[in-house]
Amino acid sequence: MLGVCYYPEHWDEARWETDARRMVELGIRFVRIGEFAWSRLEPARGQFAFEWLDRAMDILARAGLKIVLGTPTATPPKWLVDECPDIIPYDKDGKPRGFGSRRHYTFSSETWWKESKRIVEIVAERYGNHQGLVGWQTDNEYGCHDTIISWGPEDLKAFKRWLRMRYQSPDQLNEAWGSVFWSMELTSFDDVALPNLTVTEPNPATRLDFWRFHSDQVAAYDKMQCDIIRKHSPDRWITHNFMGFILDFDHFKVGDNLDLASWDSYPIGFVEKFPFSEAERNRWAETSHPDIAPFHHDLYRAVGNGRFWVMEQQPGPVNWAPWNPVPKPGMVRLWTWEAIAHGAEVVSYFRWRQATFAQEQMHAGLNLAGLDELSPGGLEAQRVAQELASLGVLPDTRKARVALVFDYQSYWTTVIQPQGKDFRYEELCFRWYEAARRLGLDIDFVRPGASLEGYDLVLVPCMTEVDEAAHAALKAATGTILIGARTGSRDRNFRIPDNLPPGSLSEMTGHRVIQVSTLRPGLSDPVSGAVAGNGIRWREYLQTDAEVLSTFANGDPALTKKGSVHYLACWPDEKLLAAAVRHVATKADIPIVEVPDHIRIRTRGDLSFAFNYGDSPWSIPADCEMVLGEAILAPQELSVFRLKP
Amino acid sequence: MLGVCYYPEHWDEARWETDARRMVELGIRFVRIGEFAWSRLEPARGQFAFEWLDRAMDILARAGLKIVLGTPTATPPKWLVDECPDIIPYDKDGKPRGFGSRRHYTFSSETWWKESKRIVEIVAERYGNHQGLVGWQTDNEYGCHDTIISWGPEDLKAFKRWLRMRYQSPDQLNEAWGSVFWSMELTSFDDVALPNLTVTEPNPATRLDFWRFHSDQVAAYDKMQCDIIRKHSPDRWITHNFMGFILDFDHFKVGDNLDLASWDSYPIGFVEKFPFSEAERNRWAETSHPDIAPFHHDLYRAVGNGRFWVMEQQPGPVNWAPWNPVPKPGMVRLWTWEAIAHGAEVVSYFRWRQATFAQEQMHAGLNLAGLDELSPGGLEAQRVAQELASLGVLPDTRKARVALVFDYQSYWTTVIQPQGKDFRYEELCFRWYEAARRLGLDIDFVRPGASLEGYDLVLVPCMTEVDEAAHAALKAATGTILIGARTGSRDRNFRIPDNLPPGSLSEMTGHRVIQVSTLRPGLSDPVSGAVAGNGIRWREYLQTDAEVLSTFANGDPALTKKGSVHYLACWPDEKLLAAAVRHVATKADIPIVEVPDHIRIRTRGDLSFAFNYGDSPWSIPADCEMVLGEAILAPQELSVFRLKP
Amino acid sequence: MLGVCYYPEHWDEARWETDARRMVELGIRFVRIGEFAWSRLEPARGQFAFEWLDRAMDILARAGLKIVLGTPTATPPKWLVDECPDIIPYDKDGKPRGFGSRRHYTFSSETWWKESKRIVEIVAERYGNHQGLVGWQTDNEYGCHDTIISWGPEDLKAFKRWLRMRYQSPDQLNEAWGSVFWSMELTSFDDVALPNLTVTEPNPATRLDFWRFHSDQVAAYDKMQCDIIRKHSPDRWITHNFMGFILDFDHFKVGDNLDLASWDSYPIGFVEKFPFSEAERNRWAETSHPDIAPFHHDLYRAVGNGRFWVMEQQPGPVNWAPWNPVPKPGMVRLWTWEAIAHGAEVVSYFRWRQATFAQEQMHAGLNLAGLDELSPGGLEAQRVAQELASLGVLPDTRKARVALVFDYQSYWTTVIQPQGKDFRYEELCFRWYEAARRLGLDIDFVRPGASLEGYDLVLVPCMTEVDEAAHAALKAATGTILIGARTGSRDRNFRIPDNLPPGSLSEMTGHRVIQVSTLRPGLSDPVSGAVAGNGIRWREYLQTDAEVLSTFANGDPALTKKGSVHYLACWPDEKLLAAAVRHVATKADIPIVEVPDHIRIRTRGDLSFAFNYGDSPWSIPADCEMVLGEAILAPQELSVFRLKP
Repeated sequence: MLGVCYYPEHWDEARWETDARRMVELGIRFVRIGEFAWSRLEPARGQFAFEWLDRAMDILARAGLKIVLGTPTATPPKWLVDECPDIIPYDKDGKPRGFGSRRHYTFSSETWWKESKRIVEIVAERYGNHQGLVGWQTDNEYGCHDTIISWGPEDLKAFKRWLRMRYQSPDQLNEAWGSVFWSMELTSFDDVALPNLTVTEPNPATRLDFWRFHSDQVAAYDKMQCDIIRKHSPDRWITHNFMGFILDFDHFKVGDNLDLASWDSYPIGFVEKFPFSEAERNRWAETSHPDIAPFHHDLYRAVGNGRFWVMEQQPGPVNWAPWNPVPKPGMVRLWTWEAIAHGAEVVSYFRWRQATFAQEQMHAGLNLAGLDELSPGGLEAQRVAQELASLGVLPDTRKARVALVFDYQSYWTTVIQPQGKDFRYEELCFRWYEAARRLGLDIDFVRPGASLEGYDLVLVPCMTEVDEAAHAALKAATGTILIGARTGSRDRNFRIPDNLPPGSLSEMTGHRVIQVSTLRPGLSDPVSGAVAGNGIRWREYLQTDAEVLSTFANGDPALTKKGSVHYLACWPDEKLLAAAVRHVATKADIPIVEVPDHIRIRTRGDLSFAFNYGDSPWSIPADCEMVLGEAILAPQELSVFRLKP
Repeated sequence: MLGVCYYPEHWDEARWETDARRMVELGIRFVRIGEFAWSRLEPARGQFAFEWLDRAMDILARAGLKIVLGTPTATPPKWLVDECPDIIPYDKDGKPRGFGSRRHYTFSSETWWKESKRIVEIVAERYGNHQGLVGWQTDNEYGCHDTIISWGPEDLKAFKRWLRMRYQSPDQLNEAWGSVFWSMELTSFDDVALPNLTVTEPNPATRLDFWRFHSDQVAAYDKMQCDIIRKHSPDRWITHNFMGFILDFDHFKVGDNLDLASWDSYPIGFVEKFPFSEAERNRWAETSHPDIAPFHHDLYRAVGNGRFWVMEQQPGPVNWAPWNPVPKPGMVRLWTWEAIAHGAEVVSYFRWRQATFAQEQMHAGLNLAGLDELSPGGLEAQRVAQELASLGVLPDTRKARVALVFDYQSYWTTVIQPQGKDFRYEELCFRWYEAARRLGLDIDFVRPGASLEGYDLVLVPCMTEVDEAAHAALKAATGTILIGARTGSRDRNFRIPDNLPPGSLSEMTGHRVIQVSTLRPGLSDPVSGAVAGNGIRWREYLQTDAEVLSTFANGDPALTKKGSVHYLACWPDEKLLAAAVRHVATKADIPIVEVPDHIRIRTRGDLSFAFNYGDSPWSIPADCEMVLGEAILAPQELSVFRLKP
Repeated sequence: MLGVCYYPEHWDEARWETDARRMVELGIRFVRIGEFAWSRLEPARGQFAFEWLDRAMDILARAGLKIVLGTPTATPPKWLVDECPDIIPYDKDGKPRGFGSRRHYTFSSETWWKESKRIVEIVAERYGNHQGLVGWQTDNEYGCHDTIISWGPEDLKAFKRWLRMRYQSPDQLNEAWGSVFWSMELTSFDDVALPNLTVTEPNPATRLDFWRFHSDQVAAYDKMQCDIIRKHSPDRWITHNFMGFILDFDHFKVGDNLDLASWDSYPIGFVEKFPFSEAERNRWAETSHPDIAPFHHDLYRAVGNGRFWVMEQQPGPVNWAPWNPVPKPGMVRLWTWEAIAHGAEVVSYFRWRQATFAQEQMHAGLNLAGLDELSPGGLEAQRVAQELASLGVLPDTRKARVALVFDYQSYWTTVIQPQGKDFRYEELCFRWYEAARRLGLDIDFVRPGASLEGYDLVLVPCMTEVDEAAHAALKAATGTILIGARTGSRDRNFRIPDNLPPGSLSEMTGHRVIQVSTLRPGLSDPVSGAVAGNGIRWREYLQTDAEVLSTFANGDPALTKKGSVHYLACWPDEKLLAAAVRHVATKADIPIVEVPDHIRIRTRGDLSFAFNYGDSPWSIPADCEMVLGEAILAPQELSVFRLKP
């Protein structure tokens, strides 16, 4: 199903009726509204002006659209900021981040919680039972513009409260953090300082706790909104629209509050933001890399416990990347279908019509700037709507055979302590994911500690702390397991385990890590044996009683195997990674379809989908029944088919 | 004629007489003094010490030199800053920019206006009728060191006043800015905040107004100085010494205050500051690029309404660029003659003698550091003086056949909203200028809205807002017109026109722009047809009823023609730009002389000048009468000649 | 002899006995402790807890270890910082640098001096006569983390005091600084402002004085500690552990306080920090460049007036560089022996055991993290201990035949006024040192003004100010002298000499410099004649009456000779530098052994040492008697031998 993001407050009221009608004609069924409208809903404290929104929702509902309403907390208005300056976030340099754009609040402010509760309660009460309303979105894009971590006085206050709960006594905090080092010992929780503006790096354990604290706050803040909404708006679901590659808080914990996850899919902008090589950036500039959107679809399907939307789908060029190319013709349609292939319930475009003013005026919409006229992206959406209608109800997404364990805390840990400048957790996971998808595999993301039963292959690119639940889940796993470097390298207090890494995991893997070498670009360590390639960036020195499948140049173990548990003791280059994943997938008896780098396949129920991100065609496997598209998959095209049994 | 900048306060009084005599012997006729001497003129509030300057001016005048006196406002002394801390400017991070160098004031400070009026009045009164005095320089290098825009409390106060005048009511401001977006609405002018330190980018319309406001202030501040000077110093002209590639304020508006423009020409430093490629930087490191100085000569001839000086001419290596090479032998002479060829009335060297102390001690002068001995640059100046004398009075500069419309606001607009990271207005204009000069053409700069009548060819590289006057001027133009991308893309409130870009210009050009693609380095779109090459950086998607002369790879219009109006829908690469300019110049029936990349020619009256910036010789056209130099133009040489009729 | 750094406070008291025993078994004789333990020694103001340290020292002493005790001033505890916020340093942006790591104090704070005296007095009193104690270390790594220069209110106060002493009157200060420039004149010492946060660059003379002031403070602060220690701890020596490539203060002046110098040798980290090319970085990533450690050994032998230790020797991978590779097998042993070859009395490893917590948990120790088990580096240390024992007492270091004059102030001067962005004093000296060592030469560092008598060859890469003592020392020198560019280019007040550079040195060299060209990468000026190669980065224009040995492309002098004094008028590229140093060494009749770039040799008494940093073997000169190692020197190996007479 298709949806769209709409801002009635941006357009003359006389145009709303036409907009609603044209949306329905296009094949749109859902419309998200309201998430930035606080200044229009409450122009001054306590003076509410809901009538316009009443009229807008009535018009949309009457036209047959299902409404998703956003709580307006991402944009507190000027009068509120002036009245309550303590809601303002601070940057890492200690400077306040002021009014004038959005997300100008810190999760640590008690005032902000009070104000948020007030407005959410009022909005939820007024609209919670509106006939057209089917769901809610809390806030908007938590974490966008680096807004999870704030470094102000309110943050310090809240951090002290959090630490007091966690550690009970200063002695326990000192012990956990190893404060004896460099005379950092504290005698009371009041002694705690923000871990910024120190002479050299602050204690990594402090930084990790500061990150955990902020992550916990996001989940709690979101839950507060959800609780209020549920009270006033029975039988409506709640979601939040997450972002891509923002790992500053644990999305799984926010997902626990929600009925379904959603995310904002801007595939092209990531080509500039993700650490691709220049060659990759040039290659994928106008299509995006073929794993960028799917990586997030699969991630948010997990965050939503099986249910997710694309809340904002890029409909053409956008405005916020260093360069913003027009997508190649066909890509808007392709991305839409791809989301559906990965299980999206709804793909909702951002936005109905390109704005003629303010920050996002260069962001395409389904309609040209200011006009009632479909844009190139709008025409592609129209085609998808027709195709979707022709296919009817789609089968459900099935559990994949491959699980990838994804862990937000490992990102925080490795950002805090990279040890090698190019150790990037998100890049590592992305490359593991890519390697598996190049084998034609469907993948489920799994949070640390969740059950791994039923998966034939479990990929753990890196999990720095393996807590009891994660340990138990790995032990209970029945499939083949491939574990990457740094896993088990820290305990919950950011300390090296007493028995060296991988700590408690050592019984399963059979090794301990006695040294680590980080390698600058240009250095590598050749790996040979059962799988071959190079170790780059991060290379561990192992002592092991496991079987050694591959070795480094000096004979040290590179890939080991103990029972079904494999351990890869380095950051693998592309060749080594591809070989390692193929090796374990084969071990796990999973059928493999090797696809070129511009082709990806994915199944939903009994349907198979193929997508072509490149410049050359690809032949769909001969033995299949075409449902949509051609057997010869042209560039920027997709095909849907059923494999013959 | 030649001049020189001189600092009597830097040298023992006993040396002044000798200095004056040696200046005259060298052939110097003008001397600029006084612009940094405030602490010597008023060592403490109200305690004046003019006697030394009296004596210095008398000595200079007696020697036969004509004096240009600078107002000393670029360097308020310490006692003033301590007394009036509200004059201090603030950087974009909100930090005050303190005493200890120069230009430590904000144009927004009312205190600063009061103090400026006071000192200018006193200086103008005392010296306004001095017999040796022929002209004034206001302040020094407005905008140097990023000093137009300031982000302090005084600036906010003044900005609010300016907005109140412009918009009358908060509602009109909200409407103009589109403040409904992200709940940015204001309920009073007191709500306005500086557009810095926001969480993400602030409203572009706010930023543009903030820029306009500062630009207006500079013009008003300069006018205040001019008004005082005119009152006390009849029959003297006034100028200001502008900088190269500083576009933070509208120089045309300051020019309106002045009798003539002047600028400070440091050709070599720009090789590092302008966005040249590394190859170009290496090539032109010791000569400068052959269009750097001429571009500014032509610009400031327009700013000065036909009259300009070079107030500071680089006489050897300087001190402020990342690297400061010694110019190749001959370049100081070449640059001097080139300024004259472009119409400069006087070329004045900076400075008479290299200082032995303080910030600019590595900056060459006409004399060696601290000595009464000509430097290599001084010897070249001496030669120019002799040559000038031998030629006698030079003919007047004629109106060129080619006009280039140059628009400061388009720079502000595209800095605020680049959309593609490498969209640089100044670079675009420079490359258009270069393309025309490679065809041997003389060029006049024209401000937006000024008459274009009488020009055979009008080049408009980019004019984001086409206001009524600019529109009328284009309609009234009788020559061939070439308009570049982004022209007409915004209205006065930074909004997309109701009928899409180019707004009101669409009747002339015949098109509308429905999408824009910005292309990262490495991407390009091949253009073929009447002119060929590649679109890079910025590529528009046009719908047009004009004739299509060239197309992009997919057949979209790249160059269109409606009557005499051509539109180029991209940022052209070197090849495409050269072809497009050649195409329209040919259309316009202008004779072309294609010159190599290291040769430039220029006419003044009936004289032709040729300049060789490179390593290989060039033959002057056979049919001419040599006035100065050789018919085979050697490297770093110039020739003056008359074309035979 | 070997030593180790130990932190009893990091480990359970039950383990101390074992640690001490295992140290002795390994062959360790010295143990440094206590330098970060303030919070454990004085948990709250006036509440002391010395008993644990008493016990630790007793255990170590009883095991036969000699103790070096550090004063704990590098890590003032939280309660002290809270009580005395005026001890906190400020960064260049004016932001306080807070508690949470180390070195969070400014040398300018009078409170900090009072607190330092107090704790040093207490510690020195308590332990000054401990039987196990043999020496003291003052503080820890002055200058680490950019902590010499601080920009806070206490610094301004102290700077004014220092200026008042130096200049006596504001007039003399104005005269010295050339404050007349840009109206910077001051009327009282109270007018002095910190030279940061100015609109453009501040006066270079002010910056140099600010640097000298801070440097003087470091020496005075260190002397204060030494005086207290000497009072309470007779018959013990005092050292400080300096850093590599930190030139922010004059180490020779601190050395004057000490009995011996020591330094902390982390050869691999410097591969990333020193401005090597990428190719060099890749080549030396896992061994370090073969001159990095030796350069500092020779420097600190001079700072220690002939006596030095390595106080912290890298024992494996560390944690603080952008990448931290494992050293190649053999390098820990090689570095240790190399320090001894250069005269180190003791090489002390950092640290006994890798920590499992806090900032340095990824820093290797002689034992694995948290364990009683030697690491790979520990095993190499063990081998060195055995080899050292087998060799017995080593001969004394002899005076070298080559002197290199090293001048901290020249570093400050050229940082303040680079003129060419890549003029880096430390790089220049390093490259001169490297060129001499590639000829197999032993080198002594000499401070400016110290006697140069007895040296056959004196190298002066750059000495911007040649004061009277330095001038006299050069005049009295009996050997061949090679002087590099910029020498003598400034007087004590950062002014250009009245007779142009090299000022007073001109009688010796025969030249004056009339212009300087700085050349961007990609530009060079070919040099030919007696020595050939290229001038890069910095190229002077000389007028000279000396003999011209080599010339630049245009015939200008590049290398001149007047008597035994040679002057090289540029920054030489590798080829030119090698040729110039070979030329003067030959002139000086010093026997040369040209070694490949991965081999270095060094003598100590009658012993010769050879070290192999590369991948290919090297043959020891045939005519020698092997003392340790092989005649064919394998990669990462060392040999000790006696040349046959």
